[in-house]
Amino acid sequence: MRSRLPVTDANLTAEQYKQKMQRRKAIQDQRLAERSLEKGLLVVHTGNGKGKTTAALGMVLRSLGHGYRVAIVQFIKGAWEPAEKAALERWGEQLTFQAMGEGFTWETQDRERDIATARAAWEQALVFVRDPIYRLVLLDEANVALKLGFLDVDTVLQGLLAKPDDSHVILTGRGAPPKLIAAADLVTEMTLVKHPFREQGVKAQPGIEF
Amino acid sequence: MRSRLPVTDANLTAEQYKQKMQRRKAIQDQRLAERSLEKGLLVVHTGNGKGKTTAALGMVLRSLGHGYRVAIVQFIKGAWEPAEKAALERWGEQLTFQAMGEGFTWETQDRERDIATARAAWEQALVFVRDPIYRLVLLDEANVALKLGFLDVDTVLQGLLAKPDDSHVILTGRGAPPKLIAAADLVTEMTLVKHPFREQGVKAQPGIEF
Repeated sequence: MRSRLPVTDANLTAEQYKQKMQRRKAIQDQRLAERSLEKGLLVVHTGNGKGKTTAALGMVLRSLGHGYRVAIVQFIKGAWEPAEKAALERWGEQLTFQAMGEGFTWETQDRERDIATARAAWEQALVFVRDPIYRLVLLDEANVALKLGFLDVDTVLQGLLAKPDDSHVILTGRGAPPKLIAAADLVTEMTLVKHPFREQGVKAQPGIEF
Repeated sequence: MRSRLPVTDANLTAEQYKQKMQRRKAIQDQRLAERSLEKGLLVVHTGNGKGKTTAALGMVLRSLGHGYRVAIVQFIKGAWEPAEKAALERWGEQLTFQAMGEGFTWETQDRERDIATARAAWEQALVFVRDPIYRLVLLDEANVALKLGFLDVDTVLQGLLAKPDDSHVILTGRGAPPKLIAAADLVTEMTLVKHPFREQGVKAQPGIEF
């Protein structure tokens, strides 16, 4: 791998550095001036790397800090992880949580039940998405339900049109379908570079995975 | 784009689906059995996409939910965002926060001052990293300080060796140097797929960017 150190920067005189940063600031100020629109976003976190749900939880935390009401629906996991529950319960009614899954698909081994559960989760999600009281709705692992065909992507996109203009919806999980990516405003792919499960036999640990 | 829907799965009979998931569960159980090691991790979140800091905040939230002490040092931003502050202050002394930066580099326009600030932040970070009371230490935007040459990567890697075996350290920010990636246990690259700043002129919004 090549070093990514900006060697040119390190060779600048203090005055050259100052001038470079002044130009950078002018560009930055112009960009900020151009970006004036506020818009409730359709956000997608996908990819095989870690951080899809955790980044959504970070946004939940920020929204709670702003005093906004937040709703979370879990599509695949069967229950709220105890540490997340302990942490987020501090906000009481400001945060609504629904775990609709019954564990991973290889636990239930029953596709009809998985489909019924995913559809019930989506019906609950729609209630939150439509309700202007929620400024952020997190549909955790919803992409997996779409990928597995438990939910129809056109039905979901149609439902998301009912989102109020100033509220945000986040869908997380691997394998977000192309139609969802096309419709979304903000899409990040979490790419696996290194993972200690695979490479070092390290197990899931508190604070990291749950 | 091709559809990523697993068409084969949708065509399976209920019994075939069950058998497939039974095989999947057997593999999953074996993997879990093989992964028995617990290890404090060196975690890196890098890339040009969103979610590097937010995913770290999600891990902070989980750690707090487990009752662990957490320390955060911000290397580039000058102050704690008010919403994050409001949210995380609920944990009182369980969370220690130090904002060491003085804003973005294009705000200070003074490299010597930026270098001095980054080094002071690193000295503070080292105190937290060495202290076994902290189970998680987040060095927010530290990668940027490394990338800009404000901190020396060998010095930082040497310092991180003092981390207790069961505590985790996360470094976030664009441009993580290859030596850091090589030394890390868990590396995720947040890849920008779509961003409404660039594409729609949408500005930074509460709950999303801060």
